[in-house]
Amino acid sequence: MRILNKKNADIAKHIEHTLLKADAGENDIRRICIQAEKYKFAAVCVSPAYVSLAFKLLKKSRIRVVSVCGFPLGGSVSDVKAHESHNAVEDGADEIDMVANIGYLKSERYTQARKDIEEVRKKIPGKVLKVIIETSLLDEKLIERASVIAEEAGADYVKTSTGYGTRGATVKDIEIIRNVLSPRVKIKASGGIRTAEQARGLINAGADRIGTSSSINIIKCGSVCRKS
Amino acid sequence: MRILNKKNADIAKHIEHTLLKADAGENDIRRICIQAEKYKFAAVCVSPAYVSLAFKLLKKSRIRVVSVCGFPLGGSVSDVKAHESHNAVEDGADEIDMVANIGYLKSERYTQARKDIEEVRKKIPGKVLKVIIETSLLDEKLIERASVIAEEAGADYVKTSTGYGTRGATVKDIEIIRNVLSPRVKIKASGGIRTAEQARGLINAGADRIGTSSSINIIKCGSVCRKS
Repeated sequence: MRILNKKNADIAKHIEHTLLKADAGENDIRRICIQAEKYKFAAVCVSPAYVSLAFKLLKKSRIRVVSVCGFPLGGSVSDVKAHESHNAVEDGADEIDMVANIGYLKSERYTQARKDIEEVRKKIPGKVLKVIIETSLLDEKLIERASVIAEEAGADYVKTSTGYGTRGATVKDIEIIRNVLSPRVKIKASGGIRTAEQARGLINAGADRIGTSSSINIIKCGSVCRKS
Repeated sequence: MRILNKKNADIAKHIEHTLLKADAGENDIRRICIQAEKYKFAAVCVSPAYVSLAFKLLKKSRIRVVSVCGFPLGGSVSDVKAHESHNAVEDGADEIDMVANIGYLKSERYTQARKDIEEVRKKIPGKVLKVIIETSLLDEKLIERASVIAEEAGADYVKTSTGYGTRGATVKDIEIIRNVLSPRVKIKASGGIRTAEQARGLINAGADRIGTSSSINIIKCGSVCRKS
């Protein structure tokens, strides 16, 4: 067994230990919940169908349960996104990562994009709402615009990526987003984060949370081993 | 302008001209609807947020409007999948391609997997329901099992893939699925279908519909040009 790298243990409190694969089974969810407690991660992030299970497993811990909405394409109608978010919260989710409608953003339908987020916001009062803007599909100006829209619509976090885009979070993304948000709104970096070095760079640039399925690798190996 | 390859024009009636990208805008949807009429495709397949628009554009044609549900990961709860399907039908969808819960299938929770489909089936009576089983994540026995479960739950089609799995439809997939289904249930092949040669192979093996975003390439170029 590898020894926990103490230099990287401080990263754990930023990590959302994530498993959203289509073929994840109950045993996989049990495993990541046990790992989250062992390594003191901030949260687990699971598909809506597994929120009830994760809630049951973690209700006595301080680990938060995060789920997703309209994930990963963002192309569901607003009413369905709102319903999905509300349902996940009823099942025990503390936080919802919704995917913005990227098509609306790209075609400059900013009012529609804002309303899409507002409908979800209204349905989960008091719960943490993160808005995924899929930075890989936006240019710098649109990353700024999308971040401002998310804040105006009541997001608690802007999240960079789904992991299904053409790339994941970069330090530059975080800097661009941080620059336009008020201090109230935090940032979750996600997508392709596999090493402690990457995670630390994103945190230093202003990310408060790191969404990754390589959490154990990050904590145990630092920047040396690249695959968990 | 390239000349329509008459040898491939017969494939058109099998094709669902598909655009589900996260950043698709209204103009992209208008374009594929115009193309669907021009080339006499069976249907367009669009994200739920664009069903209303596609319905408006195609209501005077015989082109069918298809949308997706729980796409592409299948990890939404059944109630949300049912709500999403019902909503898309209200907006004008003729057919719904839902993603089965692959995690339930992989962990042998067959009753849960069947109920997930049944809940959607109940909410859209009289409409065509396709069930995506993501063959790339299943072995041969599980492809058979998933197909039988989909039929028992009332599916009109078994669909091979989302396009987000590790591979798309193969002739072998179609043969396996066709072998266990009754004649009532049809097959939609999808994922990575880019040439007329591929499409024809899948149709000959028993696929009734071809889901692809390379429709124009297939019709115009046959097996020669591989990118549209």
